[in-house]
Amino acid sequence: MKPDVGISVPSKADRKSRMEGTKVNVSGITVGGSEFIVIAGPCAVENKDQLFETARSVKSGGARILRGGAFKPRSSPYSFQGMGEDALKLLSDIRKETGLPVVTEVMDTRQVELIASYADMLQVGSRNMQNYPLLKEVGMSKKPVLLKRGMMATLEEFLLAAEYILNQGNDQIILCERGIRTFETSTRNTLDLSAVPMLKHLTHLPVIVDPSHGTGLRWMVPSLAKAAMAVGADGLIMEVHNNPEAALCDGAQSLSLEEFALLMTDLKKISMAIDREFGNF
Amino acid sequence: MKPDVGISVPSKADRKSRMEGTKVNVSGITVGGSEFIVIAGPCAVENKDQLFETARSVKSGGARILRGGAFKPRSSPYSFQGMGEDALKLLSDIRKETGLPVVTEVMDTRQVELIASYADMLQVGSRNMQNYPLLKEVGMSKKPVLLKRGMMATLEEFLLAAEYILNQGNDQIILCERGIRTFETSTRNTLDLSAVPMLKHLTHLPVIVDPSHGTGLRWMVPSLAKAAMAVGADGLIMEVHNNPEAALCDGAQSLSLEEFALLMTDLKKISMAIDREFGNF
Amino acid sequence: MKPDVGISVPSKADRKSRMEGTKVNVSGITVGGSEFIVIAGPCAVENKDQLFETARSVKSGGARILRGGAFKPRSSPYSFQGMGEDALKLLSDIRKETGLPVVTEVMDTRQVELIASYADMLQVGSRNMQNYPLLKEVGMSKKPVLLKRGMMATLEEFLLAAEYILNQGNDQIILCERGIRTFETSTRNTLDLSAVPMLKHLTHLPVIVDPSHGTGLRWMVPSLAKAAMAVGADGLIMEVHNNPEAALCDGAQSLSLEEFALLMTDLKKISMAIDREFGNF
Amino acid sequence: MKPDVGISVPSKADRKSRMEGTKVNVSGITVGGSEFIVIAGPCAVENKDQLFETARSVKSGGARILRGGAFKPRSSPYSFQGMGEDALKLLSDIRKETGLPVVTEVMDTRQVELIASYADMLQVGSRNMQNYPLLKEVGMSKKPVLLKRGMMATLEEFLLAAEYILNQGNDQIILCERGIRTFETSTRNTLDLSAVPMLKHLTHLPVIVDPSHGTGLRWMVPSLAKAAMAVGADGLIMEVHNNPEAALCDGAQSLSLEEFALLMTDLKKISMAIDREFGNF
Repeated sequence: MKPDVGISVPSKADRKSRMEGTKVNVSGITVGGSEFIVIAGPCAVENKDQLFETARSVKSGGARILRGGAFKPRSSPYSFQGMGEDALKLLSDIRKETGLPVVTEVMDTRQVELIASYADMLQVGSRNMQNYPLLKEVGMSKKPVLLKRGMMATLEEFLLAAEYILNQGNDQIILCERGIRTFETSTRNTLDLSAVPMLKHLTHLPVIVDPSHGTGLRWMVPSLAKAAMAVGADGLIMEVHNNPEAALCDGAQSLSLEEFALLMTDLKKISMAIDREFGNF
Repeated sequence: MKPDVGISVPSKADRKSRMEGTKVNVSGITVGGSEFIVIAGPCAVENKDQLFETARSVKSGGARILRGGAFKPRSSPYSFQGMGEDALKLLSDIRKETGLPVVTEVMDTRQVELIASYADMLQVGSRNMQNYPLLKEVGMSKKPVLLKRGMMATLEEFLLAAEYILNQGNDQIILCERGIRTFETSTRNTLDLSAVPMLKHLTHLPVIVDPSHGTGLRWMVPSLAKAAMAVGADGLIMEVHNNPEAALCDGAQSLSLEEFALLMTDLKKISMAIDREFGNF
Repeated sequence: MKPDVGISVPSKADRKSRMEGTKVNVSGITVGGSEFIVIAGPCAVENKDQLFETARSVKSGGARILRGGAFKPRSSPYSFQGMGEDALKLLSDIRKETGLPVVTEVMDTRQVELIASYADMLQVGSRNMQNYPLLKEVGMSKKPVLLKRGMMATLEEFLLAAEYILNQGNDQIILCERGIRTFETSTRNTLDLSAVPMLKHLTHLPVIVDPSHGTGLRWMVPSLAKAAMAVGADGLIMEVHNNPEAALCDGAQSLSLEEFALLMTDLKKISMAIDREFGNF
Repeated sequence: MKPDVGISVPSKADRKSRMEGTKVNVSGITVGGSEFIVIAGPCAVENKDQLFETARSVKSGGARILRGGAFKPRSSPYSFQGMGEDALKLLSDIRKETGLPVVTEVMDTRQVELIASYADMLQVGSRNMQNYPLLKEVGMSKKPVLLKRGMMATLEEFLLAAEYILNQGNDQIILCERGIRTFETSTRNTLDLSAVPMLKHLTHLPVIVDPSHGTGLRWMVPSLAKAAMAVGADGLIMEVHNNPEAALCDGAQSLSLEEFALLMTDLKKISMAIDREFGNF
């Protein structure tokens, strides 16, 4: 039996309440089951060509869910804030073509209904991990929720944020480690891979990793993606762009289409070493 | 001339755009002027007696603005979440009696209008410092805004959050240092008093300090309050309760009525040593 | 070409000065070459039986170097401080039997000569990463040095510490990531696996990982060990004890002999997936 | 009675063992008594003129103890490492003239005897706070010790480091808060002024503050020095240089002679407001 680690786990998130683990069904794709799931796509939807080319490529590379920002939380009011509903429409169009379910971020309680009408899964970003009205609202929406760890949040707080959603009757939650803020400045954040086995121990919810935000550096993403698989994550979410140098946001951490495809073949080998299903491509 | 400190200050928040500094007018009380302003009151409004007794006492002790939570952001969904609009009504009633303007927290874009109809100043809490839709909404409200630093926000991000509000045409913003998250666990947070002279250097906005959240420990509040005055802050916001032991939230860090009154007389002496106006009580 | 990451790398540690990488020869075992090297053994040497049983077991499990503390840096003066020279003698004896080279920690400039007369590699611990007289002394000793990252040290400072040793003419240095201090408290430290690809990018020195100190929790060590291999480390150092429950130090993070053997077979599979040599056992 | 703060205080450092507090006698100057003590001087002794001019000036400004580095711990092996014993001789000479006791840093166990033969107080720097052999050695030396908090040391670890010295029979220890490492980068460190009341609560040892290292910025030193006095410290240690622009180390954070004198007159006013003795100048 594993020892107590001094974290008070809220009741509905507690693994003890569901030892077999929760499977999250994203329009037919199961996260938290036997298969390791990769979510990929651009930081932000910029235009039809960028999105469609990227989506087709990540699909053929083995991605199972498409990501793409429509409403972007940006530190500066002067940065590109996303295409809004136009982006949602493009995401919806490419889903029809590729069959890939779509996840996109929601930042405002007033947007939940609109975004839920387009997306297959709602993302609550790091900056909103403790935005309680938003957590309640996505909890009521009954859509699966991708909940990212706040860059300043302890695992206990992370689980309490999930509990806000669970407490509305929605248990379709995927937790995402995406790097925490530390004193180290050579990487954008410090990816806390220990969080994966710790969360798997504490809660029944599936756990994925975002090595793109976790490092902020494209060339480091493959190494950390492999480590995330080896450490026991249920999947990955990664930023991929058909032309990273020209990206309107997060270009420095976005994989090119080729880099993504190459990484997926490396991940395939590791998946076999750890006996985890990983698509058939 | 002071040297560059490597922070990129956004244009509207930049001190260079208004060397004389911004004065924030909270229904007749000026923050950022010659007077050192104390904001005090309970963490949360719990009932009429608690609020009224506390408000009368902090007023006679020298407080100039009343604080009191109506909608509370709590880490756990099972903690007391505030009295909501009933609290707003009580705050409005005691304002009539005491003349103290009222500041209370807003967490949801959908609440801004309601809360603005009762309060003299809107507080955006630490957890919402990067809730951009909320920043835009309070920016449009034209009410003064008390913006608290995120517990893991850099000063650059803090200024960018203020810029979101400024960018909506609202320059009535008070910045509040309230402790940051560090490795040290003996205090709830680590109060970063260096942030005060640094912010005063970088921006024209007034800066106050919250030693209650900054320490989490009632007995430490007076020492840090005095330090905040000495370091050059424009004011303080402190939690005061007529019966801290029985408080529904933050009792451990709330001053009793007597402790508050005693602290104010100590602050009076320091205000004279540093040539800062400080009420007449 | 990889982009600049804003770190000023000192000249002798800089990868650009030796693109092919440095191989460290620990009495015949090469770290930084094609083989992934595991260093294992007890936190502290406690007695002959404990050391010998553990050493024989890790050797048969595939470890290539034996660790064991003789002089222990302990936070409290009242904790077990190590067996001193008696431990060095025992380490020397078991080396004769097993053929495993020995690494042990040195804390005091005055001990370097004594410890170097017994050990195959000198360890400079986290707390001494910026103990410059000690760095100079081990630099002059010409023994290989296992330099652990300070729990508070940036990668830039880590490389500067290595530069102190290099500057004495000793290039036989293995860098070890062993967890940094962050706000997260559920693990003893936060293992910073991003440090591995970053260090491999910046310097020619080999890099290993210590998942025992990095997590502080025995049951998490295997997950992080696998992640460390997948992320690209040149090896691991792990605490193993023949009876962890009774260990005089770090029992909570020490693997049992069985856990170690099991982990090694899992690592073997991953080594094949990433095309890295890994013993023959 | 103050509540428990979850820190396990070692027995000899515990305030409960000496409620009245410890007075440290530095060759006639008492730290931890009724008088607020200022220690001032250059980061490093560079030459006779620099040291003597600075020492004379800080003495006339009200400093009671002279600081000056002879052996300097520098992050890079290529930075100025101090004048060594020549600096000790100069410090000794200017002590004769001014009567100011001298504190200087010791980094190596082998230097303790030499430095103790010149200095009135031994400084153990941040990087060596957990250098246990050094702590034991200064504990045996019977000289007063100025122990600086490690830049990432918890208060519990800080007290345990002091316990190493106390455990050798030396209770003449001054604790110094000098800034901790956090995610904030606009200042060199984050000065943790909460540490002062917390340490005064937990231990009987006197506590002083170093606003020079705490901020790294000359223009911020006066604000934080005043705050340190207001928060309840027993004194300050500050870097002062007769020509900061030309300083061989820490020029950016060194006060000029004029700035120091001006600050001392401001501190005088605050000392009266808080009823603390502060020289007669």
